[in-house]
Amino acid sequence: MSEASPPRFDAAFAAQFAELLAWRRDVRRFRREALPEGLVERLLTQAELSPSVGHSQPWRWVRVADPAQRRAVQASFERCNAQALGDYEGERARLYASLKLEGMREAPEQIAVFCDHGTAQGHGLGRRTMPEMLDYSVVAAITQFWLAARVAGVGVGWVSIVEPELVRATLGVPPEWKLIAWLCVGYPEAESEVPELVREGWESGR
Amino acid sequence: MSEASPPRFDAAFAAQFAELLAWRRDVRRFRREALPEGLVERLLTQAELSPSVGHSQPWRWVRVADPAQRRAVQASFERCNAQALGDYEGERARLYASLKLEGMREAPEQIAVFCDHGTAQGHGLGRRTMPEMLDYSVVAAITQFWLAARVAGVGVGWVSIVEPELVRATLGVPPEWKLIAWLCVGYPEAESEVPELVREGWESGR
Repeated sequence: MSEASPPRFDAAFAAQFAELLAWRRDVRRFRREALPEGLVERLLTQAELSPSVGHSQPWRWVRVADPAQRRAVQASFERCNAQALGDYEGERARLYASLKLEGMREAPEQIAVFCDHGTAQGHGLGRRTMPEMLDYSVVAAITQFWLAARVAGVGVGWVSIVEPELVRATLGVPPEWKLIAWLCVGYPEAESEVPELVREGWESGR
Repeated sequence: MSEASPPRFDAAFAAQFAELLAWRRDVRRFRREALPEGLVERLLTQAELSPSVGHSQPWRWVRVADPAQRRAVQASFERCNAQALGDYEGERARLYASLKLEGMREAPEQIAVFCDHGTAQGHGLGRRTMPEMLDYSVVAAITQFWLAARVAGVGVGWVSIVEPELVRATLGVPPEWKLIAWLCVGYPEAESEVPELVREGWESGR
């Protein structure tokens, strides 16, 4: 626990950091090429420097390489997405149907991220009035993973249009693990400073 | 929507970014001095570059300067923290009581962060199977705020030991706004690469 001296970040770093935030995208169009050996592990190590309530570190990452497991989750997406389409009408339905909302067929890396509700780590600190803090800790780690990936030129897409219970069962993880995200990870086909949903006219934002 | 060329981040930036993640702390010990004019606005602008489900941008930031409102939320912390202490026994209770878990008396800036469950923005995309994605979008923005603050040498502490409904009522925000975080913001008294809960012996982590 010997301490190094704290870093100072200069204006040049701050400007590049602002660029990083501006160019981080939710990626759905991936190149199929594999990521370099060891890169995902390095990104996960950076993600795990994230804050967590009571230092509970409740994130659990499951890298899914098995084609049958991937197909089961893709089928869940197709089912949920068809149901979601039914919520829209007319032009909005046509637009929804035209959106590409995931890159599950192309992304070379896919990671299911869970929150371990059964962990004793952290001794419950900070979770009494807001128990959702445990899930939020995992979201913070995913956000750091996302930024760390973009530093390395790697894109991440967060898929939420799946059945959480199906993902849990397909991967055979403990029942007390709650699905937080299905991440598609790989080199993006293209880069943009503008979110895809804005470019496609779904939502212009504020 | 004209596009600049995508940034490339070199090894020097990547090394500094890794330092940023390593030295971001949950800060509870603040210097009282005010932050420079306009800094919080700039950090919030960076936070709002965060991903959000369906581009819903559901984050709502309420900067709380009113002493009476701050006192009401401090009192909520004191009440909740006393109740939390009752969950522990013996040495663990003694240790809990010794922890400084918030800097609400010292931090010059305090921000209540809400998720607007009433927003129509995003048209519900991505929230059908996992409605909690709306809250997660706010957590991602807070995570970016936290990192942007540390780039500027500013510390952030996330207080979760409060009654969400009391905070909502105290600030008079709409009932459909859900409290996600109470943030204390200011220059830290000291810097460390080691989380305070680890240094104090509460949780050693993995």
